[in-house]
Amino acid sequence: MISFRVTARSSRSAARLGVLSTPHGDIETPAFVPVATRAAVKAISLQQAAEAGCQLLICNTFHLHLTPGEDLVAAAGGLHSFMGWQRPLMTDSGGYQVFSLGFGRDHDVGKLRGVFPGKEQQATIKPGSQPNHVKITDDGVWFRSPRDGSKHFLGPAESLAMQRKLGADIVFAFDECTAPLTTPAYLELSLRRTHAWAERCLELHDGEQALYGIVQGSHYRELRQHSARFIGGLPFAGFGIGGDLGQDKQDMHQVLEWTVPLLPEERPRHLLGIGHPEDFDEIVRRGVDTFDCIVPTLHARHGIAFTAEGRLNLRNRRFLTDPAPLDPACSCPTCRYASRRYLAHLVRLEEIGAMAALTVHNLHYCNRLAASLREAIAKGSL
Amino acid sequence: MISFRVTARSSRSAARLGVLSTPHGDIETPAFVPVATRAAVKAISLQQAAEAGCQLLICNTFHLHLTPGEDLVAAAGGLHSFMGWQRPLMTDSGGYQVFSLGFGRDHDVGKLRGVFPGKEQQATIKPGSQPNHVKITDDGVWFRSPRDGSKHFLGPAESLAMQRKLGADIVFAFDECTAPLTTPAYLELSLRRTHAWAERCLELHDGEQALYGIVQGSHYRELRQHSARFIGGLPFAGFGIGGDLGQDKQDMHQVLEWTVPLLPEERPRHLLGIGHPEDFDEIVRRGVDTFDCIVPTLHARHGIAFTAEGRLNLRNRRFLTDPAPLDPACSCPTCRYASRRYLAHLVRLEEIGAMAALTVHNLHYCNRLAASLREAIAKGSL
Repeated sequence: MISFRVTARSSRSAARLGVLSTPHGDIETPAFVPVATRAAVKAISLQQAAEAGCQLLICNTFHLHLTPGEDLVAAAGGLHSFMGWQRPLMTDSGGYQVFSLGFGRDHDVGKLRGVFPGKEQQATIKPGSQPNHVKITDDGVWFRSPRDGSKHFLGPAESLAMQRKLGADIVFAFDECTAPLTTPAYLELSLRRTHAWAERCLELHDGEQALYGIVQGSHYRELRQHSARFIGGLPFAGFGIGGDLGQDKQDMHQVLEWTVPLLPEERPRHLLGIGHPEDFDEIVRRGVDTFDCIVPTLHARHGIAFTAEGRLNLRNRRFLTDPAPLDPACSCPTCRYASRRYLAHLVRLEEIGAMAALTVHNLHYCNRLAASLREAIAKGSL
Repeated sequence: MISFRVTARSSRSAARLGVLSTPHGDIETPAFVPVATRAAVKAISLQQAAEAGCQLLICNTFHLHLTPGEDLVAAAGGLHSFMGWQRPLMTDSGGYQVFSLGFGRDHDVGKLRGVFPGKEQQATIKPGSQPNHVKITDDGVWFRSPRDGSKHFLGPAESLAMQRKLGADIVFAFDECTAPLTTPAYLELSLRRTHAWAERCLELHDGEQALYGIVQGSHYRELRQHSARFIGGLPFAGFGIGGDLGQDKQDMHQVLEWTVPLLPEERPRHLLGIGHPEDFDEIVRRGVDTFDCIVPTLHARHGIAFTAEGRLNLRNRRFLTDPAPLDPACSCPTCRYASRRYLAHLVRLEEIGAMAALTVHNLHYCNRLAASLREAIAKGSL
């Protein structure tokens, strides 16, 4: 199991410094959590991830169920032993795939509707609506594998059983991550389902892993507060904040302001799938302890580096003649050895080594940024 | 410039131990030379290549001429500074592309004809034959860029000028690497051209870099010996052995036995583009000092590892349940941390991190293998 200790609080915001202790070691919070969807941080080795300061990774239950399968991982002694990663791990519940393979895919929307400009759409997902490739029932969700079309059922029991076999330190209750185009009537129905699944997961949970419940409710104040009170009132070890967070970053901040104060103070809070480096400060100020996001690793593979000077797109021609290190303020292996001009050359040629070099840097950058926020809280300056 | 010192000789073969000193440090020979075509060892960083024991890399002049261009590299202070690689470097002359973009591409053949089973073909390249996308003249060769169709001319002067701007420690004279389907009449003509270009390169060479001449002559004894005597009689700093080496490995060994004894004893010999790990021992026994090959890095990207147990294809299902390290006899970062089952999982998903992990291992393996051959020569046991 885990334990969580708050060691300092900001007097000017809801930010807090903490230590989340797990069977695989302590996590200093607030912490950024890189995504290791298929048990790998894309483009690099787990040793490089550890050297970049990653404390905790989140793996994806649904993807690992498809390949290599939770039984094979269990036979290897669980994810830690399978991966050769001795630090803490989380697995998500598969609830995000209800969205990403369902309405999210049908409507080509992300969790923040505003991130796809020109794609503003009316809320058309009403009670009774079903996505094209996913069937949502009160018992759970039928998925079609995007790889081979095979059918897979995940409900609270199935998700929990898979996560138990995967063996992460922290697991999540099965939920429906809703799309930004749902009507309030659909959301009420969905929330009732997610809450029933949360209770079912608690009944089934055997206590070896830390089980987090997930707050849903989209960008509606009443629904979010209702969900935070309901989920926050259950004996979960920690809480995830998931789902659609509105049109833009302001909406996302608003959702956190509604939700976080209603969650039990002494237990950890994880924001699911959000965390551009520009967001870290605002998320942490609103009392989030851990947050995962694919952006730092995904952008790295597209030639974008996060630096003290802001985002740099290495595809820009000007970098071909720039002898500076990628980020002169950074001490990661990439910044110690490679110049912008060399990395720009590799990025233009789509050399996969460039993806690795930028991934190493972006993770180092994000972990340093989280560390600097921890230092600020400790000093009382956040 | 370079200097070469033979420090021990095998009493039972032509193998020799040596030190090749360059402005960027010493190379212990015999040495395997990984290929960094576009100034990168594919899939990994140059620091990982150095940690894997790589002493010397070979970059490709024609590819770097296309992107980013030798002028941009020269403006960065040359390849060492551009890449951030402080160990020795070679550049090839572009002569290999006369083959690979010319007759090699047209006839779908490699340097060893036998490597494409079922593709045995008659020698049909006669005097006057021209490849589809390359035009070979006595002055040099017109290429079409495989990227954008643009035209590029390389002759001895152009190749040397590009290589001077790239600034490697060791450069090669421009040559025609011939295809395995050429008639002896074509080869005689081609050899006359290659020899004239070699002389022209020596005239133009200004002496800062070490210039190697290249022996051609296909798999014909008379032509190879004529070329070895001619090129070996010129004041090159070292010698490359290039071109078509016959039907199979036996032919390749035969070519080395004809050629090497005719080259000056005190100068280094480089075998161009050959070096499966299984070949190292036989190549070294025939008096080769350095040899480059893409196989260890190329195979890594296709899931194939070279180990003390032989080649392992990680796509094989049995590895999904194998908890052993990739190569229990190896101490590289991949073998220290990753199991076969984890790597097999990543390879099946085509995770690019798996390509990096296997590249690190294969380079480590090849460099260790070369080191063990050096130890054997020193002990007199080769």
